[in-house]
Amino acid sequence: MSAFEKLVKHAKKIDNFQHLGAICGWDMAAMMPSGGSQARAEAMAELNVHIHHLNTKPELTDLFAEAEAENLSEQQKWELRELKRSWQNANVLPADLVEAASLANAKCEHAWRSQRPDNDWQGFEKNFREVVKLSREEAQIRAEATGQTPYDAMLGLYEPGTSSASLDTLFDDVKTWLPKLVDDVLEKQKSESLVIPQGNFSTTSQKALGLDVMKLLQFNFDNGRLDQSVHPFCGGVPTDVRITTRYDESDFAQSLMGIVHETGHARYEQGLPKSLAGTPAGTARSMGIHESQSLFFEMQVGRSAPFIARLADLAGKHFAEHDAAIFDKDNFQKLYTRVKKDYIRVDADELTYPAHVILRYEIERDLINGVIEHTDIPELWDQKMQAYLGLTTKGNYKNGCMQDIHWTDGAFGYFPSYTLGAMYAAQYMAVMKQTVDVESVIASGDLSPIFQWLEQNIWSKGSLLSTDDLITQATGETLNAAFFKEHLTNRYLG
Amino acid sequence: MSAFEKLVKHAKKIDNFQHLGAICGWDMAAMMPSGGSQARAEAMAELNVHIHHLNTKPELTDLFAEAEAENLSEQQKWELRELKRSWQNANVLPADLVEAASLANAKCEHAWRSQRPDNDWQGFEKNFREVVKLSREEAQIRAEATGQTPYDAMLGLYEPGTSSASLDTLFDDVKTWLPKLVDDVLEKQKSESLVIPQGNFSTTSQKALGLDVMKLLQFNFDNGRLDQSVHPFCGGVPTDVRITTRYDESDFAQSLMGIVHETGHARYEQGLPKSLAGTPAGTARSMGIHESQSLFFEMQVGRSAPFIARLADLAGKHFAEHDAAIFDKDNFQKLYTRVKKDYIRVDADELTYPAHVILRYEIERDLINGVIEHTDIPELWDQKMQAYLGLTTKGNYKNGCMQDIHWTDGAFGYFPSYTLGAMYAAQYMAVMKQTVDVESVIASGDLSPIFQWLEQNIWSKGSLLSTDDLITQATGETLNAAFFKEHLTNRYLG
Ligand SMILES: [Zn+2]
Ligand SMILES: [Zn+2]
Repeated sequence: MSAFEKLVKHAKKIDNFQHLGAICGWDMAAMMPSGGSQARAEAMAELNVHIHHLNTKPELTDLFAEAEAENLSEQQKWELRELKRSWQNANVLPADLVEAASLANAKCEHAWRSQRPDNDWQGFEKNFREVVKLSREEAQIRAEATGQTPYDAMLGLYEPGTSSASLDTLFDDVKTWLPKLVDDVLEKQKSESLVIPQGNFSTTSQKALGLDVMKLLQFNFDNGRLDQSVHPFCGGVPTDVRITTRYDESDFAQSLMGIVHETGHARYEQGLPKSLAGTPAGTARSMGIHESQSLFFEMQVGRSAPFIARLADLAGKHFAEHDAAIFDKDNFQKLYTRVKKDYIRVDADELTYPAHVILRYEIERDLINGVIEHTDIPELWDQKMQAYLGLTTKGNYKNGCMQDIHWTDGAFGYFPSYTLGAMYAAQYMAVMKQTVDVESVIASGDLSPIFQWLEQNIWSKGSLLSTDDLITQATGETLNAAFFKEHLTNRYLG
Repeated sequence: MSAFEKLVKHAKKIDNFQHLGAICGWDMAAMMPSGGSQARAEAMAELNVHIHHLNTKPELTDLFAEAEAENLSEQQKWELRELKRSWQNANVLPADLVEAASLANAKCEHAWRSQRPDNDWQGFEKNFREVVKLSREEAQIRAEATGQTPYDAMLGLYEPGTSSASLDTLFDDVKTWLPKLVDDVLEKQKSESLVIPQGNFSTTSQKALGLDVMKLLQFNFDNGRLDQSVHPFCGGVPTDVRITTRYDESDFAQSLMGIVHETGHARYEQGLPKSLAGTPAGTARSMGIHESQSLFFEMQVGRSAPFIARLADLAGKHFAEHDAAIFDKDNFQKLYTRVKKDYIRVDADELTYPAHVILRYEIERDLINGVIEHTDIPELWDQKMQAYLGLTTKGNYKNGCMQDIHWTDGAFGYFPSYTLGAMYAAQYMAVMKQTVDVESVIASGDLSPIFQWLEQNIWSKGSLLSTDDLITQATGETLNAAFFKEHLTNRYLG
């Protein structure tokens, strides 16, 4: 067995243990009763220790050196590159830093759960200080290992190949036109009237409707399931993708579009190259590309006129006892494209969402690079919210800088993925429309040509290309904010 | 850390991995879509290799020697004994035998799935030959390690402390009175009439009824769940017990009593001593004791007159649209105590079940001890079925010696547990009635005194006593078939 083959075999062994963690993690969120949590947490911690042990086996260093000297095909060279990237990401941190960060993050997150409702920035700041300190240490070590700035080294964990230089260009572009676009759209929507869903929408009917929509989106039920959890997610493994949603019986709309979103994530996982299963080259390219699939489903397909018409029709059938005016397709379109300047990112609409992300990106970039301190965050948050959305968060920490879980866990560098995903999705659609009659395809109810495009250009590539090459091969150029601007302008002012 | 403490810590590590296997195993049966099976099988195999690796760490030999020389309390000595028993069971077989047996069993079981419906003994015999050969090798090695006969060494995997000498005594006793008792009961039941449930009993209503019955049996829903699977079982871990059932919409009766049975298993797991969680001394005493709990629930409580009355009442409420005559309590009693001489063990009633078990026990004992060959089985099966139940299985392999999965997997020594469990359960009830007014307690709907007795005498003991001591402390004597005979006679001829 060659060194390369040994590395592939070792990766598959790690993947087998991650498989168990993925299923037990899904189970924790979707199935486990409360009394099971402590023993489960211990079992998961034991598993993570073991996976870390496998990732850091000393003999891997020599195996990588040997494999790099072997006579490999071009694809194998790329697979090796991904194997090594994954290994280095897991190896570069000293064990005591990993443990200290893990404790500090857990402490910060746990306290945050009650500090946020209490609007207690003073209390939060004490724990968060340690999270920032250790995250900066992590970023510094990763920066030295990769020759990047500290923030870019963190960004690389989620968006390998992306830099803050390119994010600055993209997001600065967005900032030149987004605030005015939002104002114009609000002005336009001011006079529109809308029938808001009211009454009781049973979980049973919502689930049946969700399953119908998943079928329309060709979710493969032989390789996945839909269940419920407090926080919707897409988990499991590529041959068995577990998506979840949360049902609010007073409003079906959010859960329904949430299912469309998670189905996008799921189809990416289901479509990853089977020949590379269990190896880093066979996994999703990045968090941003993952989000580009969910947002392609949710925003590009899901909010298109013909899809909205189908969705309204299906919902009307499942909720036949409710006011038919809700399920009028124009009303449905309005329901799903209402714009509002508001405080909370997770509740934001398609148009204002990028403002929430850019604000966070600018703050976390400067925080990790040591340009600002964590105590500067509340004021910066307020300034940027005023600039981008015209809202003040002075003294309003719980709906301001304390609203997200990400930073409490030291996940600096993650936020850009959301808006990168939205931008990639707009670019795919613009290019797809050159060869696929998207509107008619959606209207026909057989969306196969759309999925074939995604399968061919994105899903089947796994991590065999850099993100830039993936996008260039799919769309003819690297990420270009103009597609996103045009999409938003057409949809909201067209 | 003392050697004893190191061994406890190591056992808890193994238990953490077993936890992941238990949840993923439950998931395979209750949740996993078909396309997930291959990757899951690989992940589970990887986990089992790792658990085997942990069980066979060379340093454990010295640790056990060290721990045995340490100054331990009486309870710690017993814990150590159980740790060592579990370690020896996992260690005594050479790796190549384990692998060969695993392959032979998988091959035999897989082929059996189609050979059984085809009644293909000739085909089955070719694979089964290898299973028997390797099981005999295993039994021989275990016999040498424990100083027992080969069959007793296999029996010890499921019923530590029990020997075929004592089983012979117990079962020979049963054989003196069971055939006549069955005939007398059949004669008595001949003239009885019965309203058989007919129509459609929806899965939703059956599940709601099942959950009501679980509440009556004080299943702790903070530490467990009820789901569906093709083959009902009790899995998961003590803090998160997963029981399953199968719903037949044309007949609720079997599933309903199946839930009572699995709830008995579950409450034993939920009631195991928390201070010993994750160590062998904190687990169930034996398969027979486990079955004594499920059968105590199913046969002693579940088929008692006041419980049957409650069950009939609850079922009548959940199936209000059906013929009320079904849910008359006398009809319900008859429904659940019908006796029939038949071929299939898993469908057998309480009274004929021991005949099926004794037949298998006598054959597997002689097979593993080399007294008979596997080719003798069909004829022996036919002879014993004729002697015990008056039925011939000549040429009828699929409803004869090919009906069970156990032997295809080399699980020789398991069958006695079923009837041991039934006998223990009868003995508990006879003794419990000396201090608990069982009938009134069940009639009152608050069964707590019954569960307190079980909790105190069985559940909380885990594996801290030998089976004989457990039974003696609980009932004043070791297992005595007279209790079982009296129970059956009272119920079926009383
Ligand atoms: Zn997403
Ligand atoms: Zn059982």
